[in-house]
Amino acid sequence: MIARTPEPPYYAVIFSSLRTAADEAGYAAMTRLMEELAAEQPGYLGIESARSSLGLTISYWRDEASIRAWRENLRHAAAQRLGKERWYEAYQVRVAKVERAYGMSEGG
Amino acid sequence: MIARTPEPPYYAVIFSSLRTAADEAGYAAMTRLMEELAAEQPGYLGIESARSSLGLTISYWRDEASIRAWRENLRHAAAQRLGKERWYEAYQVRVAKVERAYGMSEGG
Repeated sequence: MIARTPEPPYYAVIFSSLRTAADEAGYAAMTRLMEELAAEQPGYLGIESARSSLGLTISYWRDEASIRAWRENLRHAAAQRLGKERWYEAYQVRVAKVERAYGMSEGG
Repeated sequence: MIARTPEPPYYAVIFSSLRTAADEAGYAAMTRLMEELAAEQPGYLGIESARSSLGLTISYWRDEASIRAWRENLRHAAAQRLGKERWYEAYQVRVAKVERAYGMSEGG
C-alpha cells in the first residue's frame, strides 16, 4: 500500500537493510509486531516497505519529536538490538524532511 | 546495495509505486535504462530499490537543482509518460531533504 500521507512538510525515516540468512520466521514476526507498534505511536503517518536483495522500509512521521519518541520506545529499542546482532548484515537509517509530494491514485 | 551517500545534508526522491500487470519485460528494460541514465547525471549520489507488492525506489541527489535537471531530462520525461500510461496503477513521489544518517556496514 502507498501510504496516505498529509500535505508536506512531514518526516520520513528511510531504513535500508541487507539481511543475514538467519532466523527468517523470527524476523518476519518481529517486523509485523514493530509495524503494529509503530502505527500506535503519536505522530505516526504511515509506512511503506518492500524487499528484493535489499530491504527498504520508509516510515512517515509528523515531526522530529515523534521520531525521537519512537526510537526511544523500549520494545522498539529491544528489536533494534536483535536486528543488529542477528538479522542485519548492514543497514542505513536516513532521517529526511519531506518538502513536496505529488502522484497519481488508483484509477486516476 | 545500500547506497554510499556522503554526510548529510543531501536530497532523496522517494518513488512508491503499484504496478499494472502490463508489459513486464518492457518495464524491466526501461527501469534498467533509467537507472543507468540517472547515474550519469550531475549531482547523482546513488539509488536503492526493492519491490514486493509495492515498489520503492529512492534516488539520492546533491541538491534540488540536480533533481530538477533530472526531472526535465527528455528521455526521463518520456519514460515517465509511459509509466503513467502503461506501467503504474498508482504512484507517489516525495522529495525530501536528508538531515541525518547513521548505520552499520557489512562486517561492522
